[in-house]
Amino acid sequence: MIVSALLTSVGINLGICIIFITLYSILRKQPGNINVYIPRLVAEGKAQQRSHFNIDRLLPSPGWVSRAWHLSEEELLSTTGLDAVVFMRIITFSIKLFSVAGVVGVFILLPINYLGNQIKKTDFSDLPNKSLDLFSISNVEDGSKRLWIHFCAVYFITAVCCYLLYYEYKYISSKRIACFSSSKPQPHQFTILVRGIPLSSGGTFGNSVESFFTEYHSSTYLSHLVVRRTSKLHGLISDMESLYKRVTRLKSNGPAQKKFQRDGFLGLFGRKVDIVDHYERKLGDLEENVRMGQSDVSLAGEEVPAAFVSFKSRYGAAIASHIQQSDNPTEWVTEQAPEPHDVFWPFFSASFLQRWISKLVVIFSVAVLTLLFLLPVAFVQGLTNLNQLETLFPFLKGILTMTFVSQVITGYLPSLILQMFLLIVPPIMKIFSSIQGYISHSEIEKSACSKVLWFTVWNIFFATVLSGSVIYQLNAFLEPKDIPLKLAVAVPAQASFYITYVVTTGWTSLSSELFRIMPLLYNSIRNCVGSADDEFDVPSLPYHIEIPRILFFGLLGISYVILAPLILPFLLVYYCLGYIIYRNQLLNVYEPKYETGGKFWPIVHDSTIFSLLLMQAIAVGLFGLKKLPLASTLTVPLVVLTLLFNQYCRKRFLPIFRAYSAECLIKKDRQDQNDPTMATFLDRLVTAYRDPALMPIQYSGNVHEHNAPLLSFPEV
Amino acid sequence: MIVSALLTSVGINLGICIIFITLYSILRKQPGNINVYIPRLVAEGKAQQRSHFNIDRLLPSPGWVSRAWHLSEEELLSTTGLDAVVFMRIITFSIKLFSVAGVVGVFILLPINYLGNQIKKTDFSDLPNKSLDLFSISNVEDGSKRLWIHFCAVYFITAVCCYLLYYEYKYISSKRIACFSSSKPQPHQFTILVRGIPLSSGGTFGNSVESFFTEYHSSTYLSHLVVRRTSKLHGLISDMESLYKRVTRLKSNGPAQKKFQRDGFLGLFGRKVDIVDHYERKLGDLEENVRMGQSDVSLAGEEVPAAFVSFKSRYGAAIASHIQQSDNPTEWVTEQAPEPHDVFWPFFSASFLQRWISKLVVIFSVAVLTLLFLLPVAFVQGLTNLNQLETLFPFLKGILTMTFVSQVITGYLPSLILQMFLLIVPPIMKIFSSIQGYISHSEIEKSACSKVLWFTVWNIFFATVLSGSVIYQLNAFLEPKDIPLKLAVAVPAQASFYITYVVTTGWTSLSSELFRIMPLLYNSIRNCVGSADDEFDVPSLPYHIEIPRILFFGLLGISYVILAPLILPFLLVYYCLGYIIYRNQLLNVYEPKYETGGKFWPIVHDSTIFSLLLMQAIAVGLFGLKKLPLASTLTVPLVVLTLLFNQYCRKRFLPIFRAYSAECLIKKDRQDQNDPTMATFLDRLVTAYRDPALMPIQYSGNVHEHNAPLLSFPEV
Repeated sequence: MIVSALLTSVGINLGICIIFITLYSILRKQPGNINVYIPRLVAEGKAQQRSHFNIDRLLPSPGWVSRAWHLSEEELLSTTGLDAVVFMRIITFSIKLFSVAGVVGVFILLPINYLGNQIKKTDFSDLPNKSLDLFSISNVEDGSKRLWIHFCAVYFITAVCCYLLYYEYKYISSKRIACFSSSKPQPHQFTILVRGIPLSSGGTFGNSVESFFTEYHSSTYLSHLVVRRTSKLHGLISDMESLYKRVTRLKSNGPAQKKFQRDGFLGLFGRKVDIVDHYERKLGDLEENVRMGQSDVSLAGEEVPAAFVSFKSRYGAAIASHIQQSDNPTEWVTEQAPEPHDVFWPFFSASFLQRWISKLVVIFSVAVLTLLFLLPVAFVQGLTNLNQLETLFPFLKGILTMTFVSQVITGYLPSLILQMFLLIVPPIMKIFSSIQGYISHSEIEKSACSKVLWFTVWNIFFATVLSGSVIYQLNAFLEPKDIPLKLAVAVPAQASFYITYVVTTGWTSLSSELFRIMPLLYNSIRNCVGSADDEFDVPSLPYHIEIPRILFFGLLGISYVILAPLILPFLLVYYCLGYIIYRNQLLNVYEPKYETGGKFWPIVHDSTIFSLLLMQAIAVGLFGLKKLPLASTLTVPLVVLTLLFNQYCRKRFLPIFRAYSAECLIKKDRQDQNDPTMATFLDRLVTAYRDPALMPIQYSGNVHEHNAPLLSFPEV
Repeated sequence: MIVSALLTSVGINLGICIIFITLYSILRKQPGNINVYIPRLVAEGKAQQRSHFNIDRLLPSPGWVSRAWHLSEEELLSTTGLDAVVFMRIITFSIKLFSVAGVVGVFILLPINYLGNQIKKTDFSDLPNKSLDLFSISNVEDGSKRLWIHFCAVYFITAVCCYLLYYEYKYISSKRIACFSSSKPQPHQFTILVRGIPLSSGGTFGNSVESFFTEYHSSTYLSHLVVRRTSKLHGLISDMESLYKRVTRLKSNGPAQKKFQRDGFLGLFGRKVDIVDHYERKLGDLEENVRMGQSDVSLAGEEVPAAFVSFKSRYGAAIASHIQQSDNPTEWVTEQAPEPHDVFWPFFSASFLQRWISKLVVIFSVAVLTLLFLLPVAFVQGLTNLNQLETLFPFLKGILTMTFVSQVITGYLPSLILQMFLLIVPPIMKIFSSIQGYISHSEIEKSACSKVLWFTVWNIFFATVLSGSVIYQLNAFLEPKDIPLKLAVAVPAQASFYITYVVTTGWTSLSSELFRIMPLLYNSIRNCVGSADDEFDVPSLPYHIEIPRILFFGLLGISYVILAPLILPFLLVYYCLGYIIYRNQLLNVYEPKYETGGKFWPIVHDSTIFSLLLMQAIAVGLFGLKKLPLASTLTVPLVVLTLLFNQYCRKRFLPIFRAYSAECLIKKDRQDQNDPTMATFLDRLVTAYRDPALMPIQYSGNVHEHNAPLLSFPEV
């Protein structure tokens, strides 16, 4: 790839970004789009409706940038929770790391690479037609003493990265503990989930639980709720809920705005009816169905051998969840309960063995998906090589000889197509994770996050780098000692692909994140067909899509910092843009649905350590290839040191993310002893984990009240 | 190797065994040898001294065999503890497994192998000169339908083995829980070890512990003892202890037997002194030294940031040891305490980081030792190949052509030399384990057991099988997909070596175990120089030597069951002999020094699973080699099933071996509530973990009393 092709790509994408951002600045001020751009503020009632027309509405303004920039971390923490703070710290961590790496790369390594003589330079004036390889390590001659500067850079960047990682891990663990210490009593802190309840002869699961915990945890046991099989009811209830919201909002608009709709297909055919009446009748029918279902389940007693057991103190719950309860480890299996609205109800029915097997099946399926996915990647990879494309589609020859077309194809198209394919992966991974037997949405999302991350790393990095048949790639990993050499040959060759990848996929994904193109389209269509002002959901930040993406760019940056430092400025632009855009979105768009207390950070840490090891492995291979075996050997201790550092962090910080300490729990419990509201809290705790499908429902009679607390646990 | 060479080897070793056993039957009846053959009974005072001469004393008698045979498991459990029962069950498990495998191997596989035609048979009458390969799978022609019988045997033996493993795991876990339930209150059940105690400003570690546990475990906390740095004192004390024992015994013989000894070198030179006076004076000097040391340490306050913390209930101790105590996981690190006399005092001083680093250093050292050890093994391996030996030492040509000499060399010498080298490995591994930072002798022995096991498997199995340079062998494992094929080529070729290995090393090690040749020699020398009736130690069974040996023969049996079923009868003889001999030794010789509650079994389970996987990997390679690719492919699901079985067992049984359940602990605690002796027990618990080096000593004044409880915790 030549410099001008890169510049074309940068130009196109910069243009797209600017257009998107400008459009956003204008569109966000239109009243019709508030559900798209500030749904969170709308839901919180903070958005003032500006109905009067104003010329200011049509001009782009940078006010939102300044608001996002000036947001302090405390404000972010209080409004969006610790998970969002951790998410933003991934970006600030990357900015810090790549600022240092960028200075080293651009001002030290880049000139050294350019001064090499492996690639023929015609003359200096013809810069646009020069290969990007001029700026990469490929240009440094074999055995050159200058490679020792690269060697020092490997050590330096590893040291900086480890220091930053340690600092962040320490900071986030302290934040996690601080958040817990300052939190109000919450149901999940007092509750555990028990699975594998044995059935005593003739009794029910409820009796078993009652007798077991009054026997062995008499001083702290409060109550229990046995889980029931309610997947059918859940469908009915969710229909009912959305209908209820719709009716409430319609009514809140007052009788003045009475609306009519046709009662046929999509509201387009049939006779005109009063829309509120119509919905209320529907709601009544649904409620009848649900009531019948509820009484049916209770009578049939379809209990699952799992229960939520609540305790009078956090420490009591922690004791029960940490100590193996029964002599048979497959019975009375305990774990800390998730937040009540975070519980994933459908998969409670699975037994110990079923969950174990479904977990194995999921692991197998993920592996298969990863392997099958290589086919589109291989095709996309072909597009970056014009010669291959011409032999494949001879009729394209005419078009491909045009400079602009060939530049677009090599610079832009491949990563765009790849990106399209990748869009379907996160939802699939989320489905896999939900089958795996996790009990909460947050656990599912965390697991999907890891899956998507490794999928991305394998398919976009290794499969592209080691392009070839699936078998060939697997072979590469079945001969571990050849890995550094193979990587050292293959990775630098793909430098230009990844530089354009950062520019195209990275920049574009950020601006489309800001622009929210799909919700905008959806909203516009609804505005057109006239069902605006209807119910809308405040989305939550899809961590399992965003975190892997950000981490993957980090992996690219770290592994190419030595090889092709030209990638670093583009990455820095990506992260700085991301810093503003994600802060803006967290403020205006996304609402946290649950709180894991920063449990996503260990994934970030592991992934960064992996990136470092990858960089070091490539360096080992590369110094060998460049006939500097001493440097190659001297890089090996760095690998060992990095592994030791990781091991130390796992011992020092990881336990904090698994559970809270006795010290911490007991302190909190003592604070609560003097709290007069605790009695009320414990009363409500008894029913906090009632299955939403089994809650007594009272919708049709309740629709006159606004903002009645729905099925979630009332906040204390 | 030909049949006659095998028969020579069997003959020699059978002879040696019979001689050893006959000699044992005679020598054990000699009064001079009671310290060698029944030290345990002597220590328990059960051995009656037969001083009158009797013709019966000179004739071998099989009474001990019958006594060992008739011993029931309950008796074994009550006299020697659960660890010895688990040890015997390894042998009975092997007998069961290899009985079934032996029937399949000898009556089905052996005839099939013999009917093959790959190796030329001259005629039937010349059996002694036929190669042993005739009876191995090498003799079956490629692509033969008969190989499907071998395929079925792989499945059948895996199924039998897994069934037996599951049954044993279940049985031993239930025994472990039963033993705990029926045990008397013991100090280690109520105590935890806390490490990484932070020092509050100005205070001592003792104050920190006191304030932390009264703050957070006020209801169950009983007392604590801070560990001190006492390695120098330990040396003095152990000298004193042995001197004290000697004096006590001399005195107990009464004034009638007053003895004199010269006070110079080894009691051979110098002037004659009353031996009791001489020792008492020495004891007094030592005591003075120790007292000074004790007060010195106390004054200097060389405390280590570790303490034994005792609780009023077992459940209280379990809670403190299971839940992370502090927000910083490297502080207040807790674990269940070992038995007081099992504590390994020297390594308490190491900090969290030091222990971690020394663990890594040990892992590295073990790897280096394993690699360096290949050199003698390679040499020994050369001896089995006469041609190599002749080229190496040309002057031996004349001797080596003699049939008997060559048979001895190929059949006997190699494994004998190997055995000599291997004798030094277990002590080295034990030293490594003790550096690793374990806090108890039992943990050290358990860890050394694993180390010796994997050392044996690597050096005696893989290094012999894949003979060649170290680099070549490592290469074999760096290309994982080629492993089955390489094993399938190499393992059958070594069949005759391992058959003789079982006969020589296996049988000989058992008979020398019975004969106790080194203690016998030591005792005879002492008898000669006249210091008999002196102090002697009752040995404990060295699990880290015996268990790896038994398991390694199991690995040989399982991996050769398909390849060379001729090994099985010899193995069965080994195990049956072992059954009688070890039971006899457990009854008469060894005394348990500590009780792990069967924690050695998981090692046995893992090792057997590894053997099964090895057999299956060899089968995969072999069926491929024998041009039966379908059978090769169909063996792969068996590998997966075996891994799943292992995973299930780890989930189902392993937690039982890690800790006792809440149910179990609380039940025990409730039983004790009504026990009137508990108050006394708790009083004594306070001082149970006092460092023996810091106990107030009172030897010189105390020597008149017999059998005064020494430094161990008084039994309750």
